[in-house]
Formats: sequence, C-alpha cells, structure tokens
Amino acid sequence: MPSHLRSLLIATVLLVPSAFAQPARPPEPVLTPEEKVLRAIFTEALAHGQAYDNLRLLVTDSPGRLAGSKALERAVVSTEKMLNALGLDRVYKQDVMVPHWERGPKESVTLLPPAGTKGGGIGLTAVALGGSIASPKEGVTAEVIEVKSIDELATLGREKVAGKIVFFNRPMDPSFVSTGRAYGDAGDQRFRGPAAAGKYGAVAALTRSLSLSLDDVPHTGLTVYASDQPKVPAAALSTHAANQLSAALIATPRLRITVKVHSQSFPDAPSHNVIGEIRGTEFPDEIILVGGHLDSWDIAPGAHDNGAGCVQSIEVLRLFRTLGLKPRHTIRCVLFTNEENGTRGSTAYADLASKSGQKHLLAVETDNGGFQPRGFNLGSTQGPAHERAARWRPLFEPYGIYAFSKGPGGTDVNPLLVQGSTVAGLTPDSQRYFDYHHTSTDSLDKVNPRELHLGAAALASLIWLVDTQGL
Amino acid sequence: MPSHLRSLLIATVLLVPSAFAQPARPPEPVLTPEEKVLRAIFTEALAHGQAYDNLRLLVTDSPGRLAGSKALERAVVSTEKMLNALGLDRVYKQDVMVPHWERGPKESVTLLPPAGTKGGGIGLTAVALGGSIASPKEGVTAEVIEVKSIDELATLGREKVAGKIVFFNRPMDPSFVSTGRAYGDAGDQRFRGPAAAGKYGAVAALTRSLSLSLDDVPHTGLTVYASDQPKVPAAALSTHAANQLSAALIATPRLRITVKVHSQSFPDAPSHNVIGEIRGTEFPDEIILVGGHLDSWDIAPGAHDNGAGCVQSIEVLRLFRTLGLKPRHTIRCVLFTNEENGTRGSTAYADLASKSGQKHLLAVETDNGGFQPRGFNLGSTQGPAHERAARWRPLFEPYGIYAFSKGPGGTDVNPLLVQGSTVAGLTPDSQRYFDYHHTSTDSLDKVNPRELHLGAAALASLIWLVDTQGL
Repeated sequence: MPSHLRSLLIATVLLVPSAFAQPARPPEPVLTPEEKVLRAIFTEALAHGQAYDNLRLLVTDSPGRLAGSKALERAVVSTEKMLNALGLDRVYKQDVMVPHWERGPKESVTLLPPAGTKGGGIGLTAVALGGSIASPKEGVTAEVIEVKSIDELATLGREKVAGKIVFFNRPMDPSFVSTGRAYGDAGDQRFRGPAAAGKYGAVAALTRSLSLSLDDVPHTGLTVYASDQPKVPAAALSTHAANQLSAALIATPRLRITVKVHSQSFPDAPSHNVIGEIRGTEFPDEIILVGGHLDSWDIAPGAHDNGAGCVQSIEVLRLFRTLGLKPRHTIRCVLFTNEENGTRGSTAYADLASKSGQKHLLAVETDNGGFQPRGFNLGSTQGPAHERAARWRPLFEPYGIYAFSKGPGGTDVNPLLVQGSTVAGLTPDSQRYFDYHHTSTDSLDKVNPRELHLGAAALASLIWLVDTQGL
Repeated sequence: MPSHLRSLLIATVLLVPSAFAQPARPPEPVLTPEEKVLRAIFTEALAHGQAYDNLRLLVTDSPGRLAGSKALERAVVSTEKMLNALGLDRVYKQDVMVPHWERGPKESVTLLPPAGTKGGGIGLTAVALGGSIASPKEGVTAEVIEVKSIDELATLGREKVAGKIVFFNRPMDPSFVSTGRAYGDAGDQRFRGPAAAGKYGAVAALTRSLSLSLDDVPHTGLTVYASDQPKVPAAALSTHAANQLSAALIATPRLRITVKVHSQSFPDAPSHNVIGEIRGTEFPDEIILVGGHLDSWDIAPGAHDNGAGCVQSIEVLRLFRTLGLKPRHTIRCVLFTNEENGTRGSTAYADLASKSGQKHLLAVETDNGGFQPRGFNLGSTQGPAHERAARWRPLFEPYGIYAFSKGPGGTDVNPLLVQGSTVAGLTPDSQRYFDYHHTSTDSLDKVNPRELHLGAAALASLIWLVDTQGL
C-alpha cells in the first residue's frame, strides 16, 4: 500500500483530528534558484512582515485622511518616516495641489410622516456622497421617486422627475463571483446618478449603498456632477435603510423625505505623493513602480482602502532590503495622494514621469484590499502582458496565486500606460471588500496580517521576476 | 488602439475610481452545457444561498455542542428539520454512542509569587484540553519546565522532569503558507504532549495554544493519554500567556504555578449521525457522500468548526433540489457526530456502509472552515484521483478554485477509503482558520456568507461532475 495511504489509515486509527492527518513535514522538494528567492520572500513576509504594524500606525494616527485634511498631512509624515527607516537610496515628496471638500456637520435623511398623520419623522441611515453640494440649511423636502437605473430615469423624463428626490435602488448583483464586477455594474448610480437626477430637474438624489451586505452601514464615495447641469445634494442610504424606504414607498407612494447635507468645498490644498526608492545597479533610470494611495474617505479608517496598499508597497522595499536583493532597475514605491476624489496625485506623477524621460518598465498598484492575493491583472500597449507573466504561474501557485488576467492595472498607474509602461494591479480575494469599502468599518480588525503580508510578498516576487527576467 | 486600452484612457480621464475602470458587463462568453450547470449552481448559491441562515440558527441554538451535551442533541433536532424542509427522498438518523466528557467549573493556571515575596498569584489565560483528567480540587502546584518538543522532553528524561509541570511552547511556524501544515507540525504538543509528560513523571502539562495569532484567546482541543502511562491534567495557555510564562521563567527559573482542572468523564451517551439523501435515478445503491461534523468543542460556538461544513453539506442537497438536478447516483448528506473527541460517528457510519454493501463512489467532507474555496484534496486506492479530478480545473477556475491536490480527505470520510471510495476534502483558504479554531471566538461574525456559499457551490459542482462523468 502506498505510504500516503498507510499514513491515512494510521491517522484514522489513532482518531487524529483532521488537520493532523496531513503529514507534518513532507520531504522538502529541491528548489530552483528562482523558487528559492520566492520562498525567501514569502518566508520573510510571513514570519517577520512589518506591513501590519505599519498599518496599525497609519489607521490609528490618520483615519479619515481625505484630500485637504490634517489627517492626510499626518499620513504623509508617518509614511515618509516608515520609508526613511528602511535605509533606502532616496526618500522624497512630490508636491501636489488637491481638492478640498469637507462633509461638515452630520447629514440626515428623514422619512416624514404621511400628510395628515401625527408623530415625528423617521431617520434613515445615510451618509453624504463625496463631492456632494450642500442642501439649504433647512434641507430639501420633496416626494421620492424610486428607480433602478439612470436609463429608467431618462425614460421617466423631466415631467415625472422634476421637483422630486430620485432614489437609485438597484442592488449590486450577488451572482457576480468578483464583487468588483458587481460594484462596477451598479456603481454608475452613485457616480453619475446624482448628475442625471439634476439633469431631469430632481431636487436631491439618494443612492443605495454599494454593498453586498444587508446592514446599517452607509457607504460614501465620489459622485461627479456634470458641469453644464444643475447640481443636487446626494447621499447614500445603508442597504437596510434603502430596503426600508422602498417598502415604505410601496405602502405610501407619495411619501416625502427631507435631505440635509452640510458639506463645503474649499480652495485646493497642498499635499504630496510620498516616494522611496532603491536605485538600480544596471539601469538606474528604468523604473519598476509599486504603489497604493495614501488618502481615504473622511469617514473611513481606510485600513483596506488603501492603508493596506500603502504598507504593502513599503513592505516590498523592505523585503528587497532585508533579503539583500539588489535590483538591476530602480524599484520605486509611490504613495499617491488624492485617489478618491481627484486623482491629482497620479496625474502629477505621470506628468513628472513624462517630463523626466525615465522609462517605467512596470507600474503595479495594490488598491483592492489587503486580502489573500490570488493573482495580477496586467495591461500593456505591447501585446498581452498577462500572457507573458503567466509563465511564472507555477512559481506563484504554492502561495495560492494563480490568476493572470488582462486588466486595467488601476486608477493610479493607468496614466503610465500610454507612456509605454506595463501597468498591473494585485488581485486579492474580493468577497469581503465591499462589506467595508468607504465606510466607518474599514478598520484594522478587518485585515488579517498573514493575508496582508502574502500580498506584499506577491508584489515583491512579481517585481523581482520582472527586474531579473523582463516582461 | 485596442478597445480595452481606449476604455482605460476614458476611465482615467473621467477620474473613475479603480473598480469602475473595469468594463461593467463584458460580453458573456458562450457556455458549454457543463459550464452552464456550474454557472447555475454558483449563481443560485450566491444569490439565494440558505447555508448562512442555517448556520445562524445552528450556532445560536446549539453553541458548545460537544459529545454528550444537550446542545448536541438540539443540533441533531435542528439539522434534521433543515433536511426535512428540503423534501428529500429520505431523512434519518443513525444511533451512535459517544464519549461524554465535561469541563466542569472554570479551570485556572496561576503563576505563584516567587518564594519569599508577598502578593497574590497572577492568573494565566488558559483552558483545559479536551479529555484532560481533573487535578485534585486544590490544584497541582509545582515548578515549571519549558520545552519546545516531545523529543526535548525525552532528552531531559525522568530525572529533570519528574514532579514538574511541563510547558510545551513551540509556536506554530508562520512560514508555512498553509496554516493547516503549521498546525500539523506543532499539534503533537497538544495531542501527545501531556501523555509524554506523564510518562516522564510530570504532574501536569501546559501547551501553547495552536494559533498563529498573538492574543488572549486560549484554544482547546483533544489530548490523548497513553493507556499504560500515568495521566496528568492538561491545559492550553493563550499565546500571550505562553509568552508571559516563558518570559517569567527566564527571570525566575524556579517559578511555581498551580493548575486546577475540574473536568469529569461520564458513561457513554446516546447521539446520532443525521442523514438526508436524494435517491439516484440509475444507481440508487451507489452513494456520493458529502458531510461535515455536527459536534463542536464545548467552549466554541462552532461556526467554522464545523457548523460551516454541516450547513454547506445541507446546501448541496438544496442546490440539487432547487435546480432540478436529478442525480444518477444517490447523493447523501451525512452530519457526523463526535468528530472532535472520539470519531464514533464516522466509525459507526463506515461500519454500516461496510455491512450494507452500498458502494461509495466519492465521500467528500468539508471541515476546514467556511472560507473562500480554493480546491479539493482527493485520495483513492485506485491511483491518483486528484489528477483525474484536475481535468475539471478549467470549469472551476472562474470561481477561484484551482488546486486539486493529493490528500487525505478528512477524519470523517477516511474510513471509507479502504472500502474503495474516493475520499476528498474541500480546501478553503486557510489563513484565518486557526485564529478561531477551538475557541470561544469561532462565532457567526467570523463567517462571510458569500465565502460560505461559494464552498457549498464548489461541493455541489464536484458532486454533479462525478455523478454525471465518473471520477
């Protein structure tokens, strides 16, 4: 009988709990030189990773680090310190002017009692969308019209919409396996819905929170107005509150609600991209970039979005330094400012890159949460980079990483695509991300240190392979 | 410029947040008939899965459902109800006598003040191991000797160990990517350590909790004594407390501690395997089994271990019923009793299977937590079943499932291996499992509904493929 079956039977006879039934230390396979480097990277990250400790510091010291905030300024200082502690060849900041929007006093959405009845209104759990204009101080009060899409709004037209509060209530589709796909599919309601509502004469817009979880946590996020159309105040309801409002509208179609938003926009504020690098031994002017974004929404600790990406990017440099990996090309960590509501950081960086004449071989970002990494998406103007990278799949599979897909990189690295860089994004497990995304619950306890560190090791491994073998 | 690049640029120009940069609805690929079935299974599970609601019921109604407990009896009743609600061909119970051990009043481990000093002792966070004998009422008080392995204990020998409390303090190795491997590698300290301590004349044994998290949560689990050696009381310290004790021993090597355990063993108690099945249309006497275990540790809500496996197994039958999939072979869900401290349920089931002459084509269990599924392990006496199953890998990859490895199935299905069945186990992500395993924190909030439902869909898909195509 083969030895593995023998061990199974022995395990069974001894009543060994399931996890013990695995042979504890199977003989170590002989590793190739490149397998050894990846093993060293993952072992260092899992056994001695510093990203989680850095994340604790960042989200404790600088929650709510939206563009223009003091918290973002503190985050610039603390991440610069983290980079300086690594003994890099260069740590510096790039000045960037960023938009400055503030939420102001807490917003409210109140369901008014039906006309002729007594009693007060019922508060619906809500949060103003980022960039929303303020309502008048006393709020906007009007009837509500529920729609499932911007197209439906267009079909209804100005006649039925004017003077009303539009309520976009199409849930994210749970049948998408990738929750990012479900977000992309439903996200137009938040991103463009209020602008469309204004176009048809609505007085305010509410959107169902972009979450697959049914709960009381409202999700903010950017909404963008059309420059040539009226702007209306906009807020997101929690998924519970959205269901509550929808049910109330069935019972009482002409229900009225009051929306109060007290936000304010200020002149652009100074901010910074924070940058650290290890100079390449052979090609110092050819860059491999790894990055995340430093800002978060004002209501969010920003642990997954995108504290995780920042500390993973810093960890990549630490792994190179600690393991004595001397890159041929310059490895540069860029912590972009203002991804959430302006992308001024990435625009400014791309401008600088264009002017400096430095070539970016690869620009990879991590902005999809600090979960177990599953793969990378890669895009290039020079043919299918994801297919070329897939040759490394056998090297990554022992670490649970197997998916190399064609993709758009990410918001902060995409401007480098037209400059000839291959852009890429780390793809972690997506199931839990939108439970926390852009909310007050995106906190440290939602991040597992091992999953975070595996992501950093995945990034360092890809970068080491591109540095040594090209892509 | 290729259209995907064009969309990238448009997305960038519009300052679209990263997740929006993905095309929302790429053209749906044409699916093969088998791809359509898997798509239907996963869609039903993600959009209408009932496993999470069942899990809420199970862990709310029956936490701490250890063999011999009232809670386990309640779990038998409630899971039988869940199966009955599905309109199956048969739902029944198999009588099984199970061991009955109770923890009794709360255990304690107290660090005594050094001789000659004043002040009270310091409590160390601890939990008695399952099956531990009781200490005398006043506890066992002795000096502590710290070791890193059973081998080290053997090297020290009776002379240095007799009369002492042995403290096994080898941490789980964080560099294993699979935390199950790390558990298997460190687990002998809990499983066999106290027996070894007794053999060398120790008066009690403490083990470091089997966890990769540094926290105050102690982990219980089975310890097994040798029948021909003295038995000693045994408890696990939280990882924090283990570090605390280790540091104290460096400062004061002859420190003494008191261990109090108040457990009691009772005569065997009646219990049940709970079974439901859909009769096969062509081969009703050939079984495809899916199962988990109904019992949990007494201190644990048992959400991941193994409420998740029970409700996933039930969900497999629901998916077949709801989607109108009429299996050729009988699909049987078995919820085994007493996996944690006796495996009497699986032994009794295997005995019955052997006597009945029913052939088990495949017996797959799910007992590694309700996390995102990544693959299956498969074992067979008829050559490499995992390699044969790997032909389905392209069907599973869209759902994040890619790993088909040689493996031992699991504790409850392994006895069926020698009867000619292929045994298998669902392999979910392992990073978070041992943070909660065998603790009071293994609660509903640690389970993500989508991850749980993806696991159920993975099981149903494997079973449908084996039913229709053989393995």
